[in-house]
Amino acid sequence: MLDYPPAVRHLIAALRQLPSVGPRSAERLALHILKSEPLLAESLSQSIARARGAIRPCSSCGFYAQETLCDLCRDTSRNPRLVCVVEQATDVLSFEKSAAFKGLYHVLGGCLSPLDDIGPEELQIPRLLGRLRDQDAEEVIIGLNTDVKGETTTLYLAREIRTLGIKVTRLATGISVGGSLEYADSLTLGHAIEGRKEV
Amino acid sequence: MLDYPPAVRHLIAALRQLPSVGPRSAERLALHILKSEPLLAESLSQSIARARGAIRPCSSCGFYAQETLCDLCRDTSRNPRLVCVVEQATDVLSFEKSAAFKGLYHVLGGCLSPLDDIGPEELQIPRLLGRLRDQDAEEVIIGLNTDVKGETTTLYLAREIRTLGIKVTRLATGISVGGSLEYADSLTLGHAIEGRKEV
Repeated sequence: MLDYPPAVRHLIAALRQLPSVGPRSAERLALHILKSEPLLAESLSQSIARARGAIRPCSSCGFYAQETLCDLCRDTSRNPRLVCVVEQATDVLSFEKSAAFKGLYHVLGGCLSPLDDIGPEELQIPRLLGRLRDQDAEEVIIGLNTDVKGETTTLYLAREIRTLGIKVTRLATGISVGGSLEYADSLTLGHAIEGRKEV
Repeated sequence: MLDYPPAVRHLIAALRQLPSVGPRSAERLALHILKSEPLLAESLSQSIARARGAIRPCSSCGFYAQETLCDLCRDTSRNPRLVCVVEQATDVLSFEKSAAFKGLYHVLGGCLSPLDDIGPEELQIPRLLGRLRDQDAEEVIIGLNTDVKGETTTLYLAREIRTLGIKVTRLATGISVGGSLEYADSLTLGHAIEGRKEV
């Protein structure tokens, strides 16, 4: 049976490796690339190669960087004695959007998970502890997810960091701002009541 | 506010040019490319550049080709005196999957649309008429959509091709094979009754 020429088939196969791109979408994307002006294919092809070559984890915090240190770690206006620990590099952007934090970050690269053989050595935990000593940290805010793995990791980190004589805090749990009580689960509501504040 | 390093932002912008890729999906795709092994980015980047450079429309029928003529037009076992006219290159594959046609195709590249200033000269219609003469065609099957533009184009082509003394046919209309009558629209059902066949 007839099929596309080899170059088109290879392109479809390459696109299928992307997340949530199935056979039909890969075909649609490939044909769009072929139909559009050559500039689109050129910019796409080049920016993929360039980004993959130029971007590495920041040698200090682990966020995306084009040089040894990321923009955040090079920003001298930020407080290096306040460190926020997050799971992934993308979490850094979420915190930055809130504009509520002016310290530095530390990307763990995952959470502890003994069943998957992920212990402290597999994560950036040894480097975190070294960094806290070097930067003479005052406070560490643990900003991990509140699922089981996140909780385990939070408790482990809290114990390790406290032995260094550094204050450890975690994010407040409660209802979402602008959210409806109807959609809050009972555990979250319980936390919100415990952590209530005077108006 | 902090954002990704320039190379990542460029990649996200390039990915957003693809169909049905919004800002969030572009970001997700970009981060996936950065997280995966370098081979994925390399194969993706190369296959995009290679496909865009290597693929052109077949100089005879307009289907995707890596050489001057596509695989179909070079296949001497096909009947060049039977030509099927389709709107887009992807339609060729749909017909080939049915395995019911052994002639050659002709991709118009669109349908007539006076409101959009698309006349016969904007489509591959002059080349079709020249080709029919050169190939000494016996029959042309018009395989266009049955919407308003497709109908207009079908009627226009039928008139032009008949003046060359060539038989013109069109696809049968009727209910889908394996489809439920419940979902057939009344116009299609009307056509199905008119075109009924003895069992």
